Amino acid sequence: MQNFTYKNPTEILFGKGMIAEIATRVPKDVPVLMTYGGGSIKRNGVYNQVKAALQHHNVCEFEGIEVNPTYETCMKAVEVVKQNEIKYLLAVGGGSVIDGTKFIAAAAEYSGSDPWEILTTMGGCLKSAMPVGVVLTLPATGTESNSNSVISRKSTSEKLHFFSPHTHPTFAVLDPETTFSLPVKQVRNGIVDAFVHVMEQYMTYPADAPLQDRLAESILQTLIEVGPKTLANLTDYQARASFMWSATLALNNLINCGVPQDWSTHMIGHELTAFYGPDHAETLAVVLFGVWQHQLAQKEAKLRQYGERVWGVKTAQEAIDATEKFFLSLGMPTRLSHYKIDAAEAAARVHARFTERGSVFGERGDITPSATAAILRMRA
Amino acid sequence: MQNFTYKNPTEILFGKGMIAEIATRVPKDVPVLMTYGGGSIKRNGVYNQVKAALQHHNVCEFEGIEVNPTYETCMKAVEVVKQNEIKYLLAVGGGSVIDGTKFIAAAAEYSGSDPWEILTTMGGCLKSAMPVGVVLTLPATGTESNSNSVISRKSTSEKLHFFSPHTHPTFAVLDPETTFSLPVKQVRNGIVDAFVHVMEQYMTYPADAPLQDRLAESILQTLIEVGPKTLANLTDYQARASFMWSATLALNNLINCGVPQDWSTHMIGHELTAFYGPDHAETLAVVLFGVWQHQLAQKEAKLRQYGERVWGVKTAQEAIDATEKFFLSLGMPTRLSHYKIDAAEAAARVHARFTERGSVFGERGDITPSATAAILRMRA
Repeated sequence: MQNFTYKNPTEILFGKGMIAEIATRVPKDVPVLMTYGGGSIKRNGVYNQVKAALQHHNVCEFEGIEVNPTYETCMKAVEVVKQNEIKYLLAVGGGSVIDGTKFIAAAAEYSGSDPWEILTTMGGCLKSAMPVGVVLTLPATGTESNSNSVISRKSTSEKLHFFSPHTHPTFAVLDPETTFSLPVKQVRNGIVDAFVHVMEQYMTYPADAPLQDRLAESILQTLIEVGPKTLANLTDYQARASFMWSATLALNNLINCGVPQDWSTHMIGHELTAFYGPDHAETLAVVLFGVWQHQLAQKEAKLRQYGERVWGVKTAQEAIDATEKFFLSLGMPTRLSHYKIDAAEAAARVHARFTERGSVFGERGDITPSATAAILRMRA
Repeated sequence: MQNFTYKNPTEILFGKGMIAEIATRVPKDVPVLMTYGGGSIKRNGVYNQVKAALQHHNVCEFEGIEVNPTYETCMKAVEVVKQNEIKYLLAVGGGSVIDGTKFIAAAAEYSGSDPWEILTTMGGCLKSAMPVGVVLTLPATGTESNSNSVISRKSTSEKLHFFSPHTHPTFAVLDPETTFSLPVKQVRNGIVDAFVHVMEQYMTYPADAPLQDRLAESILQTLIEVGPKTLANLTDYQARASFMWSATLALNNLINCGVPQDWSTHMIGHELTAFYGPDHAETLAVVLFGVWQHQLAQKEAKLRQYGERVWGVKTAQEAIDATEKFFLSLGMPTRLSHYKIDAAEAAARVHARFTERGSVFGERGDITPSATAAILRMRA
């Protein structure tokens, strides 16, 4: 086990009806900006629950944070924050709304000349950020209980991430019922997103961390158990609750304590979304198997452990195959051809971008730009 | 899954050499009281590491917090706090030192007439407490990352617990090397203590919480794997590290999110320590099997699940037997006779005390004073 520091101060408020609790968590004595997306929260009742809980608060609203939140939109919200002397941000929505709101929180207090630096320094330039509370309506990214954020820039087709101890949400409401109205596609995306988050922190090499391994396997086993259930019955409270809690624990910094991490699937996937537009989770479901196949020798010991414990199979290849079969059983495509993306072209574009940035990925730093191109060519 | 709130703001600083990090965590501008036990930290080098880290801090010391920390000793420390206008407490030691320091932190700011009320109200009377940082030297109780504390009162042979959001440590250093000098008995106690902590939160009834179940089983499996290793080689860093992290996660409020809890083994065990003096973990290793045998019908489904997943056995009884065999293999006695405690007498005393207090225990509230007596009679 490697040395580590771990701190996760976000208060989780979990279960049906818990939105009412935010009345005592959101400060009453300062102007609050409630941020949200395209308005689905007005159709599913979440907007009304939040407004009822905050009826005695001073709340402004910012609507329109899009899927893959953009720098351009977030900077408009920063203007609203400044004009209204907002002191607290309440993000109501899925990962995109929360990620966007974290960026707004950081950019509003950033004293440098260009807030894009928050992304190019991966948050390292931040000295503070506004406090952010969260009402989560889409289980997937884990952003409700970590300090990460991913922001896209339209003008340059870039998609970058940052993190900072200053952007850890103060609280997060997770009411499974608020997610019942999600379409099947978003539920499926969430299951795959959470699954791959675990894999980025687990599927590396043995690192004398048996507890972390088992915690990661616990989340994988739970997603395999409840994922199909929650897709089959979109209003099964218990299945949705376990999926929702799994997605949070998949990326709240707990399972990566003291172990190596990969994240190459995410890095390559981000570029596919930026260049071609598939959903984040859809890109992960394509890239993951390329990374595993390309790194089979390096990851063999963990792939075998995973296969034995989670799927009851013996070889690394069987573990890969069982996982791809699981994704396909959820209705999640695993090939670029499904999105009519030419693998050779995607490989060339990603290779060029990573070469330009000097990027290398993977738990051993051996996934070079050439390797990312090879990985994508394997996923035609 | 039941509704829950979860918040654990303690920063964990894990690994060899991490004591140096407290230089930036303990405030420099206020008087600090360093609390510790019988002086073992002076023999194993921890005292020197702490003093070196805090060489530019204003540090007073309070030595002599005993095993099963007493109200009487802690109140002496409260006087020291007041006389020296201490504003920060640093507990350096095992569970007893940390629990005692939490009580000192609470009592020093308590405005009521009798600080013993902190125990009789189980912390409910607390409006604030001084901040506490922790350097842990004994993996066992989990107190380094939760808000619980157990305090004994010599004058009345009472042993009571309290908890409060105000007594959550601000940070906890977990350096496995600082625990290498522990005697075998204390390591064994720690393994059993952590194991039973998990059981109190897991061995109840199925509650539609598959992730929490698997997280709990992960800790049990890890303790079963690394417990014997760390006992066999007291300076095996990796085994000790995984044991240490397991003991923290066993009682940091994570695995009990949204599930029923028992705690009857602890409640009965506390009385055995108060009346007869065996170590805390020693009492748990006796009582646990009585509780399970007495509640076999109520706990059967979870005992079977545990047996199948953790021990590869089929029946609840086999799961009980495998666990007792595991404890015995660690050298941990599981019968009252080992401590020359008369089971009938212990049953009568515990029955009288719980009757006086009107106590009932267990996840269903069905462990009455009579049941506790029956449980103890089974452990002759």
